[in-house]
Amino acid sequence: MNHPLSEEKVFKDPVHNYVHVQDDLIWSLINTPEFQRLRRIRQLGTSYLTFHGAEHSRFSHSLGVYEITRRIISQFERSSYTDWPPEEKQVALCAALLHDLGHGPFSHSIEEAFHMNHEDWTCKIVLGDTEVNKVLRREGEDFPEKVASVIRKDYDKAIVVNLVSSPLDADRMDYLLRDAYFTGVNYGTIDIDRILRMLRPFQGRVVVKESGMHAVEDYLMSRYQMYWQVYFHPVTRSSEIILRQIFRRAKELHQEGFHFNFLPDPLPGLFNRDLTVEEYLLLDEALVQTSFVQWRREEDGLLADLCSRFIDRKLYKYTELEMLDMEIIDEIRRVFRELGLDPNYDLEIDFPTDLPYDVFRPEDDSKKKQILLLDRQDRLREISEVSDIVRSISGIHRGKYHMYYPEDKLRAVVHMLPKDIADLFNL
Amino acid sequence: MNHPLSEEKVFKDPVHNYVHVQDDLIWSLINTPEFQRLRRIRQLGTSYLTFHGAEHSRFSHSLGVYEITRRIISQFERSSYTDWPPEEKQVALCAALLHDLGHGPFSHSIEEAFHMNHEDWTCKIVLGDTEVNKVLRREGEDFPEKVASVIRKDYDKAIVVNLVSSPLDADRMDYLLRDAYFTGVNYGTIDIDRILRMLRPFQGRVVVKESGMHAVEDYLMSRYQMYWQVYFHPVTRSSEIILRQIFRRAKELHQEGFHFNFLPDPLPGLFNRDLTVEEYLLLDEALVQTSFVQWRREEDGLLADLCSRFIDRKLYKYTELEMLDMEIIDEIRRVFRELGLDPNYDLEIDFPTDLPYDVFRPEDDSKKKQILLLDRQDRLREISEVSDIVRSISGIHRGKYHMYYPEDKLRAVVHMLPKDIADLFNL
Amino acid sequence: MNHPLSEEKVFKDPVHNYVHVQDDLIWSLINTPEFQRLRRIRQLGTSYLTFHGAEHSRFSHSLGVYEITRRIISQFERSSYTDWPPEEKQVALCAALLHDLGHGPFSHSIEEAFHMNHEDWTCKIVLGDTEVNKVLRREGEDFPEKVASVIRKDYDKAIVVNLVSSPLDADRMDYLLRDAYFTGVNYGTIDIDRILRMLRPFQGRVVVKESGMHAVEDYLMSRYQMYWQVYFHPVTRSSEIILRQIFRRAKELHQEGFHFNFLPDPLPGLFNRDLTVEEYLLLDEALVQTSFVQWRREEDGLLADLCSRFIDRKLYKYTELEMLDMEIIDEIRRVFRELGLDPNYDLEIDFPTDLPYDVFRPEDDSKKKQILLLDRQDRLREISEVSDIVRSISGIHRGKYHMYYPEDKLRAVVHMLPKDIADLFNL
Amino acid sequence: MNHPLSEEKVFKDPVHNYVHVQDDLIWSLINTPEFQRLRRIRQLGTSYLTFHGAEHSRFSHSLGVYEITRRIISQFERSSYTDWPPEEKQVALCAALLHDLGHGPFSHSIEEAFHMNHEDWTCKIVLGDTEVNKVLRREGEDFPEKVASVIRKDYDKAIVVNLVSSPLDADRMDYLLRDAYFTGVNYGTIDIDRILRMLRPFQGRVVVKESGMHAVEDYLMSRYQMYWQVYFHPVTRSSEIILRQIFRRAKELHQEGFHFNFLPDPLPGLFNRDLTVEEYLLLDEALVQTSFVQWRREEDGLLADLCSRFIDRKLYKYTELEMLDMEIIDEIRRVFRELGLDPNYDLEIDFPTDLPYDVFRPEDDSKKKQILLLDRQDRLREISEVSDIVRSISGIHRGKYHMYYPEDKLRAVVHMLPKDIADLFNL
Repeated sequence: MNHPLSEEKVFKDPVHNYVHVQDDLIWSLINTPEFQRLRRIRQLGTSYLTFHGAEHSRFSHSLGVYEITRRIISQFERSSYTDWPPEEKQVALCAALLHDLGHGPFSHSIEEAFHMNHEDWTCKIVLGDTEVNKVLRREGEDFPEKVASVIRKDYDKAIVVNLVSSPLDADRMDYLLRDAYFTGVNYGTIDIDRILRMLRPFQGRVVVKESGMHAVEDYLMSRYQMYWQVYFHPVTRSSEIILRQIFRRAKELHQEGFHFNFLPDPLPGLFNRDLTVEEYLLLDEALVQTSFVQWRREEDGLLADLCSRFIDRKLYKYTELEMLDMEIIDEIRRVFRELGLDPNYDLEIDFPTDLPYDVFRPEDDSKKKQILLLDRQDRLREISEVSDIVRSISGIHRGKYHMYYPEDKLRAVVHMLPKDIADLFNL
Repeated sequence: MNHPLSEEKVFKDPVHNYVHVQDDLIWSLINTPEFQRLRRIRQLGTSYLTFHGAEHSRFSHSLGVYEITRRIISQFERSSYTDWPPEEKQVALCAALLHDLGHGPFSHSIEEAFHMNHEDWTCKIVLGDTEVNKVLRREGEDFPEKVASVIRKDYDKAIVVNLVSSPLDADRMDYLLRDAYFTGVNYGTIDIDRILRMLRPFQGRVVVKESGMHAVEDYLMSRYQMYWQVYFHPVTRSSEIILRQIFRRAKELHQEGFHFNFLPDPLPGLFNRDLTVEEYLLLDEALVQTSFVQWRREEDGLLADLCSRFIDRKLYKYTELEMLDMEIIDEIRRVFRELGLDPNYDLEIDFPTDLPYDVFRPEDDSKKKQILLLDRQDRLREISEVSDIVRSISGIHRGKYHMYYPEDKLRAVVHMLPKDIADLFNL
Repeated sequence: MNHPLSEEKVFKDPVHNYVHVQDDLIWSLINTPEFQRLRRIRQLGTSYLTFHGAEHSRFSHSLGVYEITRRIISQFERSSYTDWPPEEKQVALCAALLHDLGHGPFSHSIEEAFHMNHEDWTCKIVLGDTEVNKVLRREGEDFPEKVASVIRKDYDKAIVVNLVSSPLDADRMDYLLRDAYFTGVNYGTIDIDRILRMLRPFQGRVVVKESGMHAVEDYLMSRYQMYWQVYFHPVTRSSEIILRQIFRRAKELHQEGFHFNFLPDPLPGLFNRDLTVEEYLLLDEALVQTSFVQWRREEDGLLADLCSRFIDRKLYKYTELEMLDMEIIDEIRRVFRELGLDPNYDLEIDFPTDLPYDVFRPEDDSKKKQILLLDRQDRLREISEVSDIVRSISGIHRGKYHMYYPEDKLRAVVHMLPKDIADLFNL
Repeated sequence: MNHPLSEEKVFKDPVHNYVHVQDDLIWSLINTPEFQRLRRIRQLGTSYLTFHGAEHSRFSHSLGVYEITRRIISQFERSSYTDWPPEEKQVALCAALLHDLGHGPFSHSIEEAFHMNHEDWTCKIVLGDTEVNKVLRREGEDFPEKVASVIRKDYDKAIVVNLVSSPLDADRMDYLLRDAYFTGVNYGTIDIDRILRMLRPFQGRVVVKESGMHAVEDYLMSRYQMYWQVYFHPVTRSSEIILRQIFRRAKELHQEGFHFNFLPDPLPGLFNRDLTVEEYLLLDEALVQTSFVQWRREEDGLLADLCSRFIDRKLYKYTELEMLDMEIIDEIRRVFRELGLDPNYDLEIDFPTDLPYDVFRPEDDSKKKQILLLDRQDRLREISEVSDIVRSISGIHRGKYHMYYPEDKLRAVVHMLPKDIADLFNL
């Protein structure tokens, strides 16, 4: 059911120029405290320490995902495609807008440190005692559950799930454009107008007209470059490592009964993995940054040092490993311990593809993760069957092992380091 | 004295593409905790509540100002202009980089609320017991004082002051471009390459070659539009009003001995107007946001309400006043009090030109604030003598009085409001 | 009557990204020889001699005007505004597409030299025995006349005329953006999305919602800058002067019975001012350039010299006059004659505002040329009543008198020139 | 020897913002009639019939190549790299500026039709009795020969040749950016600043610092996309086919003694393959277009028809061939002849990679055509050894056979076409 606003509202957006809000439901959702919280969560986590422009929030990204979804559906409606169920517009728009609602501060790191999952939290917020839930229930008592099930990917209208979550969905298109814009890296420029014009609802999926193949190739190549230039940037990885170490150390200290000078709600609950929805919503990146600023002055030297490194950007250095030889790693750890270093904090091995980002790999997945091309005879083909370039990209694993370490601490003991180990660290 | 880096370092910047660092001094300054703190201060304060892209920091702006200054000096050096003193390069670059170092969180509002001045703090940080000061002293014991005096505008080489602070300085050029980029408003696009190419050092000033007049006109017109479209946007003004009210209320409560559940350092010192440099450096926007998030749960209803308004973006509405009639205002205040509203918090009169931004007005100022054109016969003329469009702009005062108020509170008593007053508020 | 294409066609356009063609009528018009001829007419005439990127054609501009008109009407239809007559869509789109059809090569100069008018020719082509006419008649026998009358501005539905021809019409918006893009001058950037969103059909006119005032101000300021930076650029003026001199000289020679080695159809008819529509359509800028290339080798020294100047870009120099003193001009002409120069060709006085471009001047014109703002109470106000900046701009006359001359010829006689005259020419 | 201009001159350029001319030699070369002729030769030949923005000239491209070369050399000089011979600056800049001087109208097609080579003509113009030659000789009698030998790639300083002509040269970088800009296709966006910063002179070659690998990958991927999206676009291929047919038919007619109503110099010489340099310089695209406009009225029906097709853009349609089966082609030709069609004109088989563009293929070529990466230990490696993505791209042959034909002529005889053949043409 639509409740059009008396007058369309717009948000000025550097990426899409304007985000158009035409329905009171969307407007009300944007104005809930839960959605406004996304202003205090960065879209790219710690990347701002590598690319100083990357301060953009999940709030702006969420508006962008909503806007792209709106444009796709609007094109489907204009063209009266019979495979698009028009009554699903509202649930699709709401799911697009709200899909990131459960992200915590520095999402990937905090999820790893505290074994959480942002999708679960999104559903809890949508279904819990929140403003967002109240607004959604105006559409019907079962409406929050519908939105949640799109987000959980088990909604019974598969095309709605496909629209909001697929290798060529509004989410990925927005973040590619947005992250390119705010980092200033120009690899992410894609011809979104052309891609959108080429999308078709077809038998419960969103597919691409065959003549749009080159635009999709370009999109996948842009994504490929953004992964290696931005998302897996070693400096960003270094800051994420320190972030996780801080979380780990703070949790250890808390469990050991350490007295923090600064430990506001809901941090104790976070450490105990016992958070209500209300408490969870108090978590944001301002709180995390403030804690780290304050913890630079805590008595625990390790915690204070790690927080200084993060806040004052004295990150770990890294060195590339030709291969991952566990014997060598064990030897390094042993030497570290001998020299008074702590191998649990002073050494981290990192392999970027561990990250929960997905590069498109047609072979290892079910049909849902494929991009399908629709030819003039209404036949579907998976894009890598048709495109040499996509086939070439999809087989490539470029990740390399890196070893991260505090250079100052190693330099202090460099004269005691065996030469072969010193060489590994370029000391 | 130059200490070139073994290899030039660059920062990827969306506005200037790359920021180039060629000297170890600059590199070391960027890596001090005091400079890194600027990552946690937004360039545009509360504007992100109006333009969601405007999350960019003073860190990125400061790099931009440095980069523009570097390019100007580099052009001066390449052309071997005799009016440029080459030995002043380092002091000019350092002053450009550090000129915003003393900004606090939501600078304009906090300065007004606590009677501080960011320029004073910049000088205190430059001259105090800080990392920045240590790095600067590598250039000589008097070097910090030199940099501070450029920032205070009393350095004895006037041209250095003029380069860093004038109506056409690197500061203004960077923020115009940067704010336009991050808000997405395209009024700020200026031909900076052309302007830079037209600048000349001349008799202790930076002046503009006459043939660059149109580019300067365009710059001033862009600035004019940015003021009205962005800097004075009524929604931004509303958020600044609430911000100042929060600061005011918190200070009142603190002075009354109210017990805050959340009041970390250095907030008590801030309320008492008694901050050391070390404490001041703990202040940033993450702390302010976190405090407001927490204060939403404090016992004082007014404080909690104001903090909710700011954090959850339930701002005051506004209405335009045809003229400022103090009798009417007094009457409104009286009625407010009768109805249980608090005119000190529920009503604010605002006139945008009160803001500490300067629109170029040649007539009301000394020569230092003028833009001078240099003709082929080496004669100087103030630009508004030559340019009709500048003359036209400079006389215009467009500010209007606005009345800001909490719409929900007024709606609750609307049946008791005299009709003429209700009309004023469009109720 | 609409005849939708089975599938929308698009043109890739650097300015609007895509131009969308949805109706067979528009598609057929674009594919007529008369419309394709516009590929061989530059949008900015001789400006490519000043700005080497400005080679864009009236073909691309016409597509752009069509596209903007299509977007405006589409917004009117989406919003179901009652003041827009939906049955006028086709005539409006055709008039928008075809409004420049009658432009000749280097339009402004050739019109002046041969007393022609491109609007007349547009109507002749629309109404004559042409492919365009045949396509238009598919819509009805009176349809070509309807389109012609919109172009002549006497169509009985005033709003259609207003849409296609007004101070804020699709024509001006497209050329501002397009000329800025192709010259590379960034003064022409306007927020066209916002302007289009603010347009309303209202009582037989297209007006602007009051809240769009700043966007219109910006548009008018951009236009102002483009006039002075691009359209009135003295180097372009110089090339136009030489162009007119070539036309003048060739016509003189033709009337004197001179034998041209190169004089293909329809040049004789052009010189005799006796051209059929069929002949007129043979005229394009390729023909004019080819003629000039060939005429560099004609026996008449003056014609050959002028053609070399144009083709090889050896343009006249210019000097600015403080004021226009006819006594001085007459004295110069006398001296020129004495020294064997030809004052009819070796001296031209130019005053840019003579050009048939219009700067917005609210005071000197009927209501049709005004930009009207619509406030919330449905009152209309002329923009300069409300906007200080528009009022400021509209009064400004910046044109200056320039004297153009062949520098080489003057240098050859410089020793015989009286000093005061030599000074005027900076010799 | 440098002769700096008293004041730097600039050209406003949409791609590089400004092209800077600092030396009188370059300025004088730009102002020769031979260089100005490049204004009348389009950079992308007939592509404007597919992408209406692509009217940009070889004049603008040549300035761009010069500008990029200037920036590379300027970086080499600033960094005082010992492998760059500073005395070669002028010859490198001149070769960069002039490398396209010998291009004729619609270069690739005319070269094929008349067995010419633009590089030969460039050298003839540089060495012949021309203005360009006169200007070059100011630098020394042997200077024109030096420039010519760089263009012929046999100059004895290999690094100069490498700078002007290699897989990562200024030529390719400019055309990628420029063609993307003017067509509006955004696949060509590359981070040229970064690539330029990564170039190093090294042992007689220009190589790339290893850390620039991703930027080079992106450049090669952009090029790959531009080839398939723009350079090999089937509509452009169709217009080139017609162009070659016109040249072929006109030459046939001329050799048969046909009387042309329009046949100005130097067309007879062109048909006889007997052109002096002076005559060659009369050739440009204005002449070719004018000839075609006029020839639409010649008595030979075939010539007139072909010219109409080109000028009025009634191009041949095309159909894709699964494979090239000469038996089928011969059968089609036989049927065509039976039905009164002319298989020499009404049927063309096309395979895009025949075009003289090079896609980077490391395996099939000498070291000169390789892109080499320089690592920290000063070792060189060919990029496809290091980059998976480059290795993937370089093996891909995407070309497909197309059959081009006049659809109207085939439709006229469709009832007599055997069904299997009609099917091939989608009739």
